[in-house]
Amino acid sequence: MPRHKGDHHARRRDVSAAVWRVLATYGFGGLTLRAVATEMGATTGLLTHYFPNKKDLVAYALTLLDEHRAAQPRRTAPEGLAALRAVLMDTLPTTPQAIADNRIWVSSWDAALADPDLAAGHAARYARSRERIRHHVEAAQRLGELPPSDPDDLAVAIQSFALGLIVQALFDVEEFPPQRQIRLLDGYLATLSTTAGDL
Amino acid sequence: MPRHKGDHHARRRDVSAAVWRVLATYGFGGLTLRAVATEMGATTGLLTHYFPNKKDLVAYALTLLDEHRAAQPRRTAPEGLAALRAVLMDTLPTTPQAIADNRIWVSSWDAALADPDLAAGHAARYARSRERIRHHVEAAQRLGELPPSDPDDLAVAIQSFALGLIVQALFDVEEFPPQRQIRLLDGYLATLSTTAGDL
Repeated sequence: MPRHKGDHHARRRDVSAAVWRVLATYGFGGLTLRAVATEMGATTGLLTHYFPNKKDLVAYALTLLDEHRAAQPRRTAPEGLAALRAVLMDTLPTTPQAIADNRIWVSSWDAALADPDLAAGHAARYARSRERIRHHVEAAQRLGELPPSDPDDLAVAIQSFALGLIVQALFDVEEFPPQRQIRLLDGYLATLSTTAGDL
Repeated sequence: MPRHKGDHHARRRDVSAAVWRVLATYGFGGLTLRAVATEMGATTGLLTHYFPNKKDLVAYALTLLDEHRAAQPRRTAPEGLAALRAVLMDTLPTTPQAIADNRIWVSSWDAALADPDLAAGHAARYARSRERIRHHVEAAQRLGELPPSDPDDLAVAIQSFALGLIVQALFDVEEFPPQRQIRLLDGYLATLSTTAGDL
C-alpha cells in the first residue's frame, strides 16, 4: 500500500518539523507532547502513537538534532591547524542558524543530565567530537603546527574552549558578536601553536 | 507576633530545602510547583502563595543557587596565577558536592535561555565571573606570570575553558576523574603562562 506508506512518511515529516519548531521556540524544557500537538494542530492522542512517553520524545528530538547537524554544510580547509579551525568555526554561534542550533543543543543538557541513558548518549556524542578534533590535532602535530603533547588532552582542551565560548556567547549575544568569537578562537589556536611546553 | 514570624521563616527554609532537593534530583526540567509540593508533603495551593507562577519558582531557584555558591568555602592562594588557579579549582566538578552543584547550574541553562529576563540574569552572572577572573589575570600580568595580552579576552578564554571542561566532565564522570580535570587545568594554565604571543 504505497499511498498509505507515503502518508506515514509525510506525517512523520510533519511531526519532525513540529518538534523542531517547539525546540527552537521553547528549548527542551518546553518540549511536551501537548506543545508538539498544538504546533501540528493535532491531538495529544495522535502523538502518543509516535512517542508513548516523554523520554521517547526527548530521545527523538536528540536524533533530529544529530541529523540536522550532520546535514549542515561544512567549511573545507587544508589538513592540520586550518582544518581544525574550520571544524571549530562550524560550531560557533556566528550566524542566526548556528545560534538557534546551539541554543537547542545547550538546552538539551538539562534533559540529558536528568536521565542516565540520555546522559550516556551525550557522553558518546562528545567523545566522537573529541575524536574528530584529535584527528586534526594529530595532523597538525605531524605538520609541526602544534607541539607534540598528548593529543587526547589537547582535544579535550580545544573542545572545552569551544563549548564554553558557545555558552557565554549564547547568553550575551551583544558582548560576543561573530568577529569577537572568531578573534577569540584564533587567539586560542595561536596560543596552542606557539607553545613549546606541555599542554 | 514573633512566633508567627518564626513560623514564616521556618516555612521558607522548608521551601528552599525542597526546591534544592528537586533540583538535585531532576534538574530545572523537573522543577515544578507540584514536584516541590510533593517533596514538602504540602499542597500545590500552598506553594502558589510563594510562587504565583513557574517563572517565579525558577527565578527563586537561581537565587538559591547563587546563595549556595556564595556560601561554599573557597581555596585561598597567593595573588596572581596561583589565585586564578584556586578560583578555577573551586568551580570544577572534582567532588560529589561540586558535581551536584554544577549539574544544577548546567541544567539551569535550558530554563534561562528560554526566557529573556532569566537569560539577562545569567549573562550578568557570567560577566561578573569574567570580571573576577580578569582581576586575577591582571595581577598575574603585573607579576609577569602571564603575557600582556588583552585581559578581557584572556578572561573570556579562561572562563570558556573551565565551562566547557565542566560540561564534558558532567556527562562522562569516568573519563574525567578529578586528577585528570586538574591535569587539564594545569596544562591549560601552563600553555597561557609560557606563551609570548597574543592570546
